[in-house]
Amino acid sequence: MRLSKLVAERTKDTPSDAKLKSHILMLRAGFMKQVANGIYTLTSLGQKASLNIENIIREEMNACDGQEVKFPVVMPKELWDLSGRYSSIGSEMVRFQDRANHPMLLGMTHEEAAVHLAKNWVNSYNQLPFMIYQIQTKFRDEPRSRGGLIRVREFVMKDAYSFHTSQEGLENYYYTIHEAYNRIYNRIGLKNFISVKSDTGMMGGSVAHEFMFLNENGEDELVLCEGCNHSANQEVAECVYEKLKKEELQPLKEVDTGDAKDIESVAKLLKVDATKCIKAVVFAIKKEEGTIVCFVRGDKEVNEAKLKKVCKKDIVPYDASNDKNFCAGNIGPLNLKAENCEIYYDLSLKDSSNLVTGANKANMHLINFNIIREIGKVDFYDISKVQEGQTCPNCLNHKVKISKGVEIGNIFQLGTKYTKSMGMFIKDSSGEEINPIMGCYGIGVGRNLACVIEENCDDKGICLPLSIAPYKVHIVPLRLDDEKVSKEAFNLYESLKKSGVETLIDDRNSAPGVKFADADLIGMPIRVIVSPRSLESGNLEIKLRKTGETVMLEKDKVFNYILEYIKTNNK
Amino acid sequence: MRLSKLVAERTKDTPSDAKLKSHILMLRAGFMKQVANGIYTLTSLGQKASLNIENIIREEMNACDGQEVKFPVVMPKELWDLSGRYSSIGSEMVRFQDRANHPMLLGMTHEEAAVHLAKNWVNSYNQLPFMIYQIQTKFRDEPRSRGGLIRVREFVMKDAYSFHTSQEGLENYYYTIHEAYNRIYNRIGLKNFISVKSDTGMMGGSVAHEFMFLNENGEDELVLCEGCNHSANQEVAECVYEKLKKEELQPLKEVDTGDAKDIESVAKLLKVDATKCIKAVVFAIKKEEGTIVCFVRGDKEVNEAKLKKVCKKDIVPYDASNDKNFCAGNIGPLNLKAENCEIYYDLSLKDSSNLVTGANKANMHLINFNIIREIGKVDFYDISKVQEGQTCPNCLNHKVKISKGVEIGNIFQLGTKYTKSMGMFIKDSSGEEINPIMGCYGIGVGRNLACVIEENCDDKGICLPLSIAPYKVHIVPLRLDDEKVSKEAFNLYESLKKSGVETLIDDRNSAPGVKFADADLIGMPIRVIVSPRSLESGNLEIKLRKTGETVMLEKDKVFNYILEYIKTNNK
Repeated sequence: MRLSKLVAERTKDTPSDAKLKSHILMLRAGFMKQVANGIYTLTSLGQKASLNIENIIREEMNACDGQEVKFPVVMPKELWDLSGRYSSIGSEMVRFQDRANHPMLLGMTHEEAAVHLAKNWVNSYNQLPFMIYQIQTKFRDEPRSRGGLIRVREFVMKDAYSFHTSQEGLENYYYTIHEAYNRIYNRIGLKNFISVKSDTGMMGGSVAHEFMFLNENGEDELVLCEGCNHSANQEVAECVYEKLKKEELQPLKEVDTGDAKDIESVAKLLKVDATKCIKAVVFAIKKEEGTIVCFVRGDKEVNEAKLKKVCKKDIVPYDASNDKNFCAGNIGPLNLKAENCEIYYDLSLKDSSNLVTGANKANMHLINFNIIREIGKVDFYDISKVQEGQTCPNCLNHKVKISKGVEIGNIFQLGTKYTKSMGMFIKDSSGEEINPIMGCYGIGVGRNLACVIEENCDDKGICLPLSIAPYKVHIVPLRLDDEKVSKEAFNLYESLKKSGVETLIDDRNSAPGVKFADADLIGMPIRVIVSPRSLESGNLEIKLRKTGETVMLEKDKVFNYILEYIKTNNK
Repeated sequence: MRLSKLVAERTKDTPSDAKLKSHILMLRAGFMKQVANGIYTLTSLGQKASLNIENIIREEMNACDGQEVKFPVVMPKELWDLSGRYSSIGSEMVRFQDRANHPMLLGMTHEEAAVHLAKNWVNSYNQLPFMIYQIQTKFRDEPRSRGGLIRVREFVMKDAYSFHTSQEGLENYYYTIHEAYNRIYNRIGLKNFISVKSDTGMMGGSVAHEFMFLNENGEDELVLCEGCNHSANQEVAECVYEKLKKEELQPLKEVDTGDAKDIESVAKLLKVDATKCIKAVVFAIKKEEGTIVCFVRGDKEVNEAKLKKVCKKDIVPYDASNDKNFCAGNIGPLNLKAENCEIYYDLSLKDSSNLVTGANKANMHLINFNIIREIGKVDFYDISKVQEGQTCPNCLNHKVKISKGVEIGNIFQLGTKYTKSMGMFIKDSSGEEINPIMGCYGIGVGRNLACVIEENCDDKGICLPLSIAPYKVHIVPLRLDDEKVSKEAFNLYESLKKSGVETLIDDRNSAPGVKFADADLIGMPIRVIVSPRSLESGNLEIKLRKTGETVMLEKDKVFNYILEYIKTNNK
């Protein structure tokens, strides 16, 4: 490819709304162009890199006996009614009516389509296990797209669905895919990633893992134990607490706390630690009347995902300050008289004593509050976020730390949610009719490309790994008006192209500084510099973008050197 | 791939609604499964064949210096307002509002997106010509999906856009792509196709060609001259007429024709030929008041596409029988008093004399009607369909015949419609600002797969060309319980897989007849039969699906024979 014709707008300016390095660099180097909020066109630089990632994914899925299929992007409502997801998924799913006024949707995942495809084909356990997958564009109407390709509304995704006769069979295959994912990330050039236990969300199912690219700008909070390697997404991370020393219970007393409404002010006023206060957090229930009040230790935060599992309701944070049911800022367990209100106590409050809490009266708090004494026996649930320094729930020995991560893939043990609701049966070996057990496995292509760039870049630009680089070689002829330079550069270009090596040549009459800066910015792995001076001694210079390593080679040896380098380094 | 695990439902029954061979066979062989009207899931058989077609297209587009990009499926209204197509395209385009109530659409083609991508990058004529293309799923809400993958609502399409500084440059490149298309169809295994001049439709622009797969079930009518090879879609085919002999004009006379309302009855009643009658055809204008009346020779049909170009209105056929403006069945040019009515005369009526036409009165016709004498000077337009046997408009020598075809690709000279409306400028070599001239080029992947199957099948099933077959080899071991058979078959299977030859093995304990019938049905090109009997003499049998040719080979030579066969025949 001639650089002069490469449709890719390069800029020196950092786009004002871009914060992540990958976002900035992919725009500056012309890998993509924004069309609308969370919607991008990929230039050939972006698209060829994506196709390389897709092909690595394809190879690894085929190696796991995956069968590549293609499900529809647009599906009829009926299909999604079968699983109940047409109504259970919110406005992130696009719905529209076709010309015959038939309700249609843009598929977010394809469990229903996978069962629809396999349902009539399968009848015996002999046909299982099998896995079908596709690589296709999906649209999800994300409320907050951000970070370039990190969180978009339209993206290419590999989604895979496996079917098994037993939970054991699913678990074995699940870890086969887990290994395949590790290979995929390694092959595309990611180093700093882990897998963590995660929430099953809208998919249903029991066990799930997310693969996380560790990055300070990640949106996900991860709980990691450095002792035993346990890791989990904050959304499902379990809290464990050391047993508290028993205190003598003091008499309950009401105190005037005036304007002190939040934990910090109340604790300061009453000269106690935040851990000795009860924090009240109110949630509304979607599409229902009523509220949920959570009481957690003053230094803790409610974990919405864990709370949802406990209360089995779809909830959203709620501002109680205008609700006459509540005395906002002074809410507490005793004499709380809100209507239609469910109450949950966090595990962090268990065994604690002599606490400060709201008195459900303006300006008043209670001190020396003791839950069992004042309220009676209550249940405590694990509904708060894990904090750095808490004990690891796995080894019960080391302390955990909190990291940030970007989700680069997920795997789910789905169970029979879809096969049961859609009536898919097989006869097991004893002749009994059972619903196959499913797993599903996703990877977003564009987000992975962005993460690879996030990890593989420097001050000057992108440093693409050989495996996914759209062009492996970038030839930079200095002084194209020098006939020797031009001839040598284009000869090498043609030879490489003929050998199937994707090559870019800077055919512009620009200054060396401009050419080098552009080559650094767009980041192809192997650079060949053809200059009049080195040609005089019959040499060309090769420079590796990532390490900066240079080597001067006799010009006739360059072609073989490159082929050998690619063969050795591109796995 | 083991056939026992291949998710592909095979049936003996012919689906009731399927008429085309490709439609029936792709369903019966399990290449696809219908999800909704015009919406299919492709199984791995269908998808792998599609990917093979995509890769051939990709190679040929890259060979034309095409840059593969990826445009969004979902685009915002604003982008399409720039070209005016948001409002000019009808309900075949899906429109919806996103969660922020922003109007969005599913892109039918991507001219706007292509200009959006290139517009700011380009500034000098030196950067032109260039071509960008994508291969992506598109959804068009077709009113009449039919014929399996022949006409669907969701399909994968390669769409390409080229930009040029001059019309001459566009024309050169246009024919480069024309040649590339010929190579693509040849490579995927199509023989019976031609290119014809076509209408530019919703794309705008001047010159366009369609590539047509000739097939009696095609929806398009093609006008072909067997003498000079001229070809055109009926929609744009030009009519030429031999000069008529002059007749002496007879006196105009009104006659009672009673219930005779159509040309056939009137001609019969008055004992004249249909060519001596004037047929009146009425159209309504979309979104406007008023009608259009066309007068054509009695044996001719109005060509709506040509009429649209002449009247420059969006028209639909109109039933005038309940419209008091018209005396339906007796409409004629004289004393036609319809309000808001435009009248067009077809070229077939020029120089004709003493005609029969409606009198605009119930039950009455006029005889010896002569247009110029009765009406005065009028313009004649070419607005009727070409009939078999008419003179070729190109050589003016031979007669044309009418064939049916399926459109398998199209190429358009777009001109500056999009670059002008979207404000894309370059400086030409003299420093003047001009709008680049565009071409666009489409191929539907699935429809091509269906046409290849339509042309490559027999009574027993599909006969896939080597180039697009999902599996090149289909190993059929007879009696898998025979250890020698099983070992030989699976050894060959593993060797072929290791060499990168996609291979299917029938690992079922089925009767030979079942295995052969399935192999015939799904149609992989090279079959290897491993039977106890031939193994006794150390041989395996190879059978080519397409020709039925068989060859018995020493078992150790089979592997190399297959590799050699593929190398020689897969281009």
